[in-house]
Amino acid sequence: MKKIINDPSRVVEEMLRGMERAHPDLVRLLPEHNVLVRADAPVEGKVALVSGGGSGHEPTHGGYVGPGMLDAACAGAVFTSPTPEQMLEATKAVDGGAGVFYVVKNYTGDVLNFEMAGELAQAEGIETDYVITNDDVAVEDSTYTSGRRGIAGTIFVHKICGAAADDGRSLAEVKELAERVNGNMRSMGMSLTSCIPPERGQPIFQIADDEMEIGMGIHGEPGTERKKIEPADAIVDELLGRVLGDTVDFSGSEVAVMVNGLGGTPLMELYIAYARVAEVLEREGVRVFQTYVGNYMTSLEMAGFSVTLLKLDEDMKRHLQAPCRVPASRPF
Amino acid sequence: MKKIINDPSRVVEEMLRGMERAHPDLVRLLPEHNVLVRADAPVEGKVALVSGGGSGHEPTHGGYVGPGMLDAACAGAVFTSPTPEQMLEATKAVDGGAGVFYVVKNYTGDVLNFEMAGELAQAEGIETDYVITNDDVAVEDSTYTSGRRGIAGTIFVHKICGAAADDGRSLAEVKELAERVNGNMRSMGMSLTSCIPPERGQPIFQIADDEMEIGMGIHGEPGTERKKIEPADAIVDELLGRVLGDTVDFSGSEVAVMVNGLGGTPLMELYIAYARVAEVLEREGVRVFQTYVGNYMTSLEMAGFSVTLLKLDEDMKRHLQAPCRVPASRPF
Repeated sequence: MKKIINDPSRVVEEMLRGMERAHPDLVRLLPEHNVLVRADAPVEGKVALVSGGGSGHEPTHGGYVGPGMLDAACAGAVFTSPTPEQMLEATKAVDGGAGVFYVVKNYTGDVLNFEMAGELAQAEGIETDYVITNDDVAVEDSTYTSGRRGIAGTIFVHKICGAAADDGRSLAEVKELAERVNGNMRSMGMSLTSCIPPERGQPIFQIADDEMEIGMGIHGEPGTERKKIEPADAIVDELLGRVLGDTVDFSGSEVAVMVNGLGGTPLMELYIAYARVAEVLEREGVRVFQTYVGNYMTSLEMAGFSVTLLKLDEDMKRHLQAPCRVPASRPF
Repeated sequence: MKKIINDPSRVVEEMLRGMERAHPDLVRLLPEHNVLVRADAPVEGKVALVSGGGSGHEPTHGGYVGPGMLDAACAGAVFTSPTPEQMLEATKAVDGGAGVFYVVKNYTGDVLNFEMAGELAQAEGIETDYVITNDDVAVEDSTYTSGRRGIAGTIFVHKICGAAADDGRSLAEVKELAERVNGNMRSMGMSLTSCIPPERGQPIFQIADDEMEIGMGIHGEPGTERKKIEPADAIVDELLGRVLGDTVDFSGSEVAVMVNGLGGTPLMELYIAYARVAEVLEREGVRVFQTYVGNYMTSLEMAGFSVTLLKLDEDMKRHLQAPCRVPASRPF
């Protein structure tokens, strides 16, 4: 196992300490709890946004904590849900009196634990609500999921709802917006290689040197098909075809597009994929408002990528363009 | 070879097209020349900054084109210098009448070709000058280098001199600042794995499953030592020890720090490394002004990282913090 780590059982703690040291103006660590919160939390009178999940998807979610996005991110062990106790500590640390909103990717453990945390918080007098993101069109149920999985589109919820909360929206309004964003976005991914979780020390699946898996999840959960690797354009056509053919009608609309790298794929290849995405969208009459190409939600060193489309309305566009200051958007 | 590409001989062209399509408000392509220029180039009356080099190091350099950083980036084939003709076309496209400044990493081909381009441009009446960056303390001469190599610290020159040019500094003043930044920064890297250039289709070197190379270059050029892989803290201690022990006296100073991923190393590991960097700097009495953790200058999918320290003065600090808008710093 070739990794730049010290103790495989301490990678999350050491990573979070590194993030706090690197960005002390943006985030601070609740050290016993593996929770990163905004350096200036709580912000009085503002709805607070909390997300979280297993580690190994960086910069998701800790990299999105800061003004204009998340108020806190709960980091579980690698590919393991954080606990309700972590989520409760995060909730208490960021509550500014206007309620706390949870952005939860649809994985069974995350959903159960955030629901429990919400009940615990309400028992302490903090109003909470949540959205469950499920943008991945690849499979209807999966290893860790009842229903569709939440993947990279979740970052659009962080950004848009983070800006809306900054704008003074109420908990109910933030929830309505989050549901609207989630309902308007679809994603699908593929992978070429496995990753190696540090504590496991072994690849989580085997794949031949000339094969790819379509619809792969961000924890290596099976997708829809394993087959011989194809040219980038053919891969994009397949992923984007599934996204465009799902239940959101993107034709004639304005969209945000994300080509998200899973960690091990060079930026060169993500831009090659995007060149085809742009061609297909132009042909289909879909107008691109804003494009995101890079590693937004990874799976350690897995090679592969996903494509997300979000159908925008004016409200979303304004919040997508609002300023934010988070570790993942640092200069340059 | 597991890559998301179409034709190995067309990866650079397709990548650049993808960058232009993704960021049309920031960059446009001189399509016959594989040069990305600012969308609004030329900017009248401003010194223009041009950089470039072999492709495969993305986001270097095309990702740094935009207001506040570079006016143009010339993309060679993978790990191959761009030609003087490309550089001349870039120069003519961005010249705003105040001269054109080249930021050149110290590789023999890059240096010769930028020198030749400067002569060609001067023959056409465009004033040019250049800096050669050589921040890598690992080796004094190398496969493609006479003298030290230029690596990730080069991005600090892009940022600081880009802001200074925006501020209205003259060509001579920009050069003086560039030399000062280059003279105040030192870097050193290591790698765990090779990358695979698309046209070659094979790893550029072999390294055992339990080995690392200290001082490795960004084209896989040999470093100083190959040995058994060590814990992250020991690796950081070795790299940072060499950086701190070189000819810049960092003690008691304020620095910018970059922990730069070579492409295939998860962000988690870069932050684990940074946690140790912060500890060592604190112990050594070096104050951190600004931290950069991420993939700034890569080597395709190579696993590994480098550490750069830049000793700052007030002038550099102001320019480091100036706003810029480039593909590599897009939201979020």
